[in-house]
Amino acid sequence: MVKIIISGCNGMLGQTISKLIEEKRDIEIIAGLSRNPKKINNSYSVYTSIFECKDAGDVIIDCSNPKCLPDLLKYAVERNTPLLIATTGLSREDIEDIKIASKKIPVLYTANTSLGLNLLINLVKKAALVLEENFDIEIIEKHHNKKMDAPSGSAYMIADAINQELDSSKKYVFGRSGNEEKRIKNEIGIHAIRGGTICGEHNVIFAGLDEIIEIKHTALSKKIFALGAVKAAKYIVDKDNGLYTMEDLINL
Amino acid sequence: MVKIIISGCNGMLGQTISKLIEEKRDIEIIAGLSRNPKKINNSYSVYTSIFECKDAGDVIIDCSNPKCLPDLLKYAVERNTPLLIATTGLSREDIEDIKIASKKIPVLYTANTSLGLNLLINLVKKAALVLEENFDIEIIEKHHNKKMDAPSGSAYMIADAINQELDSSKKYVFGRSGNEEKRIKNEIGIHAIRGGTICGEHNVIFAGLDEIIEIKHTALSKKIFALGAVKAAKYIVDKDNGLYTMEDLINL
Amino acid sequence: MVKIIISGCNGMLGQTISKLIEEKRDIEIIAGLSRNPKKINNSYSVYTSIFECKDAGDVIIDCSNPKCLPDLLKYAVERNTPLLIATTGLSREDIEDIKIASKKIPVLYTANTSLGLNLLINLVKKAALVLEENFDIEIIEKHHNKKMDAPSGSAYMIADAINQELDSSKKYVFGRSGNEEKRIKNEIGIHAIRGGTICGEHNVIFAGLDEIIEIKHTALSKKIFALGAVKAAKYIVDKDNGLYTMEDLINL
Amino acid sequence: MVKIIISGCNGMLGQTISKLIEEKRDIEIIAGLSRNPKKINNSYSVYTSIFECKDAGDVIIDCSNPKCLPDLLKYAVERNTPLLIATTGLSREDIEDIKIASKKIPVLYTANTSLGLNLLINLVKKAALVLEENFDIEIIEKHHNKKMDAPSGSAYMIADAINQELDSSKKYVFGRSGNEEKRIKNEIGIHAIRGGTICGEHNVIFAGLDEIIEIKHTALSKKIFALGAVKAAKYIVDKDNGLYTMEDLINL
Repeated sequence: MVKIIISGCNGMLGQTISKLIEEKRDIEIIAGLSRNPKKINNSYSVYTSIFECKDAGDVIIDCSNPKCLPDLLKYAVERNTPLLIATTGLSREDIEDIKIASKKIPVLYTANTSLGLNLLINLVKKAALVLEENFDIEIIEKHHNKKMDAPSGSAYMIADAINQELDSSKKYVFGRSGNEEKRIKNEIGIHAIRGGTICGEHNVIFAGLDEIIEIKHTALSKKIFALGAVKAAKYIVDKDNGLYTMEDLINL
Repeated sequence: MVKIIISGCNGMLGQTISKLIEEKRDIEIIAGLSRNPKKINNSYSVYTSIFECKDAGDVIIDCSNPKCLPDLLKYAVERNTPLLIATTGLSREDIEDIKIASKKIPVLYTANTSLGLNLLINLVKKAALVLEENFDIEIIEKHHNKKMDAPSGSAYMIADAINQELDSSKKYVFGRSGNEEKRIKNEIGIHAIRGGTICGEHNVIFAGLDEIIEIKHTALSKKIFALGAVKAAKYIVDKDNGLYTMEDLINL
Repeated sequence: MVKIIISGCNGMLGQTISKLIEEKRDIEIIAGLSRNPKKINNSYSVYTSIFECKDAGDVIIDCSNPKCLPDLLKYAVERNTPLLIATTGLSREDIEDIKIASKKIPVLYTANTSLGLNLLINLVKKAALVLEENFDIEIIEKHHNKKMDAPSGSAYMIADAINQELDSSKKYVFGRSGNEEKRIKNEIGIHAIRGGTICGEHNVIFAGLDEIIEIKHTALSKKIFALGAVKAAKYIVDKDNGLYTMEDLINL
Repeated sequence: MVKIIISGCNGMLGQTISKLIEEKRDIEIIAGLSRNPKKINNSYSVYTSIFECKDAGDVIIDCSNPKCLPDLLKYAVERNTPLLIATTGLSREDIEDIKIASKKIPVLYTANTSLGLNLLINLVKKAALVLEENFDIEIIEKHHNKKMDAPSGSAYMIADAINQELDSSKKYVFGRSGNEEKRIKNEIGIHAIRGGTICGEHNVIFAGLDEIIEIKHTALSKKIFALGAVKAAKYIVDKDNGLYTMEDLINL
């Protein structure tokens, strides 16, 4: 039985993880952390600070926000507890602190816990290396009509991963309205479709001379982020000290 | 046997139509018109002016350019010959002249002879009327990397047809890069993908509350424009005087 | 305010409709019918027989099963109440009884209340008429891996609607494994994909000479059936006596 | 300048390769082999036996048939010439002979020279390893209505590659018509769509709990097989002795 301490347990991802773990037999949450511990009636004790938590966990899952990071890193190193960090918006200093901690404990850090999306990125990088010379790359992402930002953070994650693989040679093009010129070879076109209640779809198109390769990820609910987080927590629990990513999990 | 006079016979569409008709038994080309009559070795006589053509045709197909229109209209009315006009870039005056001629002969005018794309427009208009209140409309078009303009003329044809059906209430949005706002209800998103040798694809998405309707047309070659032109020529040959569109052909 | 009596209120569709109506201001449920009235704690009174219900409704929605039909028809005719029947598995006698009742009250009968799927059928019939001569028709449906039957009832609804439009000239082909012959012109291929938690997708493909038309419906949740039922109930409430279908609603 | 001897030069693939190489400046065909040397008027000399060919080539491309193999292997070993074998229908003995020859010269053998399809197989194997435990795998292939066999050889290549990666644990299911049972975990569904002039499309679907990964290859013409063959010939020209596959080329 893997014992979990979950930071940010009353947030959307925290609650999705909680519900998922309730159905499992080989993993349980023994404590939660939240700014508003009484906001939700959880089946485990919830504290405002991790130092109040007396029980020892096997892994900490952090899906709160960057402010909680210093305490979590301190506690995890002191108690020798593996740490999964699944928050966004970390600063460079935060990343440095994570690296330092990872010398003493295993840490997995990711901005996106979806197994499928991380696999897509892995496959797309491979395809980009093989096809780069002769294929044009375009990314189409689709989300619901309430989404505020465009293109999606995940679309940028994909484009950046391709670009890193190809020595940063590509520039991003977002709309072609009014164009009166041919496509330039070193473009990556990124297109943001918005409509209805679409949960999330990312399609990467490699279009070449008379053939097309497409790699597509479709999310049907936010549950997939919880599934990936649980998988990552189980993965990190018995690893050597060091800094891990979702890609390590995929490369098992 | 339907006898065709083809204006613009040495252009790309003209040649595709010529090759297609050679394989048919119920239709033949009896004369062609071209600025460069000797550019291509056709199986029929080619003239620079329709008034040089002594043989009577059953239908005239015009896939040349607007400059040829006055002569063609004059000849067609004098000889009482049905006329299919499949050119783009006509002026308002041209359209007026066509309307006047269509009182004396049957005329079919279209900017796009593809049967499939015209059917798509017909279906999309129907869907827009039914779904408009609760669905968001987005258009994705894909073409090869040599195409100069974006979005495609056909994407505009589709969007304009929807808009006409919905009392011009929609505005077009072309790129959403940098957006920090939700989608507005009366948008039509139009997205131009460019890559490889893609011949032409138009996908119209209606995304609503937990359901999506998509209507998509894929062109695999330019032959489809010739197929539609031949079909339209056969359709117009025995019609009453009047102005027809590809929609009439579809509504058979 | 439209007042609803709902038969089968404790079934899956009944509950989805109940939750949907709770969010609405122009419609309310005043009574429910169920074999197990106490199974679920609803916000309205639930009876075992419609004759126990003293309050008058503006419309009855039936999403129970064929056994309840005779009582519902009797009550609806006596009280002059419009009736929406959204059950499957009706016998020929049931259909006859519905027709007789529809002379005295407005009745809408459908095996599928999804607005989108009914629109797809409407569009596909139109496309089939236009394209039939030269295009091959194939249907791909996708559902979750727990679904027991294949192909889906909706795939058959689509195929039957096409076939009715084309004078029953098409035969259905389900798997082509081991084929050593070309496709026959009068086939409709039907393909059942099963995997994961896919809610429901139906794609109708018309493949012709160098062009393809596709019409696709994607369901993201079962909520769409409730949405369509509410829309149909509002539609039928003030209609003349007669038998209606979802197609009438679409043809508004 | 890479000098090519092409066996089967008057076949469909041979001719497509010939036309492609004519446009290139860094590669040329110096001789062809054919049973009917005079069938087509090529820009290079064509012989019935490779032993008649006096000029030395840098690589031999074999796109003829298994009967030609013994002579080609003998010649290639004697002259120390790299060999690309792109024929289908080889026997076990043929494969053994190829292995023996590959100890003395570099040999690349493949049943399918499309770079894109081989990349798809490579990506699909990777995805299968990561996703196998929790995702259902389905393959949809689409081809024109003249194709005699179903499912396509390439669909089997894909399914076999997945199965090899997963210890042959999967069985293939071709049609689900009349099923009254749930999907079994160790199935791979294979579906053959036939219609119009579709050149070739293979889509591999991994459907899991609320997420779907799809990897798709679309061929727009048969030219892609020639492109891959030329790429493979250039790849093999300066390799060490040994047996190579398209996968080596992809893994550059």
